[in-house]
Amino acid sequence: MLKELLIEENAVKKGNFTLTSGKQSEYYVDIKDACARPHIMKEIVHEVVKKLNAKVVAGVELGAVPIVIGVSYQMNIPYLIIRKESKHGMKKLIIGNPEKGSEVNIIEDVVTTGNSVLKAVNLLRDNGCIVNRAITVVDREEGGYELLRDNGVELISLVKLKEIFQK
Amino acid sequence: MLKELLIEENAVKKGNFTLTSGKQSEYYVDIKDACARPHIMKEIVHEVVKKLNAKVVAGVELGAVPIVIGVSYQMNIPYLIIRKESKHGMKKLIIGNPEKGSEVNIIEDVVTTGNSVLKAVNLLRDNGCIVNRAITVVDREEGGYELLRDNGVELISLVKLKEIFQK
Repeated sequence: MLKELLIEENAVKKGNFTLTSGKQSEYYVDIKDACARPHIMKEIVHEVVKKLNAKVVAGVELGAVPIVIGVSYQMNIPYLIIRKESKHGMKKLIIGNPEKGSEVNIIEDVVTTGNSVLKAVNLLRDNGCIVNRAITVVDREEGGYELLRDNGVELISLVKLKEIFQK
Repeated sequence: MLKELLIEENAVKKGNFTLTSGKQSEYYVDIKDACARPHIMKEIVHEVVKKLNAKVVAGVELGAVPIVIGVSYQMNIPYLIIRKESKHGMKKLIIGNPEKGSEVNIIEDVVTTGNSVLKAVNLLRDNGCIVNRAITVVDREEGGYELLRDNGVELISLVKLKEIFQK
């Protein structure tokens, strides 16, 4: 079970952390190291695939990228990576080929406020993609679900942060 | 064949580009979009796997990451991702768990001067890993092979830039 695996892997750290959203937190959910172990990666991919309702997957660099690639690899479907910035080469913010009218699911490792996912949703929509669903491994339940719902995106989480604490 | 696939995918662009190394170039090799198509990703993974001589793979964000994940997924081996910087959360420069004494192959999408790979080699060695081999999809042949050789790393390339031009 994914929840137990994340607990075993010590995926929730205590300390003083600055989250990507800029928020301070005494908890940091680190799925990235856990994903680097193939048996955990495959369990996460297995669970994400059950929730997919699109034939293209997308994710924001860098945390979600391994999971996005794993799902793409497993399902033989293309992926899109949303870059935070691009200074070199083609200077594109999307890696891969967004196609007009294609349905895309966004995958995240951890959702807090949902702002990072919403930016990705907007960029993909600006490129003609249809985005109605995001799938996150962990939902910290700090407003992300509501923000995305209000923007027409259903957020599905595999595990909620409080469930990891309950053990 | 990989070379033909990269030509078909228009992986070499002409224009005025600033490479990650800071160099100016009128050619830019963009493997990233090509990798986002599953049949090309799987062909690249297939070719990289033939050259592997370690049971851990590593790569520098972001270009190499999809290939590293693909190889990890295919071979059921752990991966390490070398970050350029880390401002949030754990602030670690290596994602994954470098183990002392473990042999690691570095994977790259494109090697130019080799500086980026060499930084990764040094960071991994500082963390106790043994790094003797790097595998790149494309070698631009601008000193990377020699720089890495002089630092005890054999650079193996799947395709050389000039081979893509020959067609």
